Amino acid sequence: METLHKRVTACVIIIGNEILSGRTSDANLAYLGQQLGELGIHLYEARVIPDTEDAIVNTVNQCRRIYDYVFTTGGIGPTHDDITSQSIAKAFGVPIRRDAEAVTRLKAFYGPDDLNEARLRMANVPKGARIIDNPVSAAPGFEIENVWVLAGVPAIMRVMFEGITHRLTGGAPILSRTVSTDLSEGQIADGLKMIQARYPNANIGSYPFFRQQRFGVSIVLRGIDVGTLDGAAADVHALVTELGGALLAESKV
Amino acid sequence: METLHKRVTACVIIIGNEILSGRTSDANLAYLGQQLGELGIHLYEARVIPDTEDAIVNTVNQCRRIYDYVFTTGGIGPTHDDITSQSIAKAFGVPIRRDAEAVTRLKAFYGPDDLNEARLRMANVPKGARIIDNPVSAAPGFEIENVWVLAGVPAIMRVMFEGITHRLTGGAPILSRTVSTDLSEGQIADGLKMIQARYPNANIGSYPFFRQQRFGVSIVLRGIDVGTLDGAAADVHALVTELGGALLAESKV
Repeated sequence: METLHKRVTACVIIIGNEILSGRTSDANLAYLGQQLGELGIHLYEARVIPDTEDAIVNTVNQCRRIYDYVFTTGGIGPTHDDITSQSIAKAFGVPIRRDAEAVTRLKAFYGPDDLNEARLRMANVPKGARIIDNPVSAAPGFEIENVWVLAGVPAIMRVMFEGITHRLTGGAPILSRTVSTDLSEGQIADGLKMIQARYPNANIGSYPFFRQQRFGVSIVLRGIDVGTLDGAAADVHALVTELGGALLAESKV
Repeated sequence: METLHKRVTACVIIIGNEILSGRTSDANLAYLGQQLGELGIHLYEARVIPDTEDAIVNTVNQCRRIYDYVFTTGGIGPTHDDITSQSIAKAFGVPIRRDAEAVTRLKAFYGPDDLNEARLRMANVPKGARIIDNPVSAAPGFEIENVWVLAGVPAIMRVMFEGITHRLTGGAPILSRTVSTDLSEGQIADGLKMIQARYPNANIGSYPFFRQQRFGVSIVLRGIDVGTLDGAAADVHALVTELGGALLAESKV
């Protein structure tokens, strides 16, 4: 772990009963984790919470004080269970207001006949918030201080995120190396522990897998310094070879 | 929401840098949410945290005081980054000990020649913990008070969970009805809000979808009382028909 470097940190808050009930599998966390890593922002935690005001207010207020960035997904649609915007206004202790630019966009998207009050609610954002573009379906997300409120539908969440990356300030991009072998975790554990001790600025993880009818393990090395990662990856290669294992694949991200 | 009923609550803690980095998509939360619901245990929150002692100790200690049940996944393998067991011992303020029964099982699984010290570490559990069977790969999970420690590999996590369900005590099973229509959320929002107001003991969620080249919305009704759910679902049917929408599907879980 690069404990000597200033880290830019983030938390993702996934808002939605459907994720907790198991009806829907979240498809946003892995995307955000990858994208933030490329921006040099370390995703430290994610929380999945229900569509209740208490849960949203308390979780947002806890997390926005701990992390540099907080991203929420879900709960900004037109129905009664979409309460993210009003709950975040409450978390910040500010009133909710109807954003004029958002109304203009919703009018253009739905046309005057179909823009009912339920849909207009999607133009409501906390006072002091700045809207986030939604080129797919008009209804915006918003940012307020260090909290960024995104849609839950993955295609919309992604296009919103792509539109805000230039406003996010990360540190050095987080790089990774992966070494995969047909050895097992138990065989490499001692050697891997020693490599981790030699490279404290590389974060080394070990992930067993079963694919194409064979067991194996992927060793993932992450960090911000290319030289450190290359050195540690070379040592992992040497360890695998010394133990008589095959090197199955390596990818650089 | 059935606020008048005593609810049995749970939290899932997903331990693993690979989930936060986006390298791996979590495959355990949806399964646990569904299974717990069938047992009448409401999954209220999930947290995804890194493989660090501080994160594990603090999160486990927060969550075990709030929720009836806490389930963790991940971090109980043989490598240096598997620190769940020792961290949970620290959270409870008890020493870690080597479980004799777990050692016997690991010996039988690996044979005497391959049971090295790294693999024996998987027999370490906090003092006072009771081991959870792992018929797939022997290395056990464990329970201590209201915290249940499971593997991260989905196939192993599931078989562990199946082996403990008889030890979990839930309330009434959580039932659900789903009504899907080709209408949009904005069209049904007002009517749905009124139905929710009429049935406070049904939790009504609205989820837009895009499948087979068409947009639509699924309305999911959840609760523990069949009569309430059937009444609310009938009202949703009537609303859809009144608005000129097609009923696309309905499933009962």
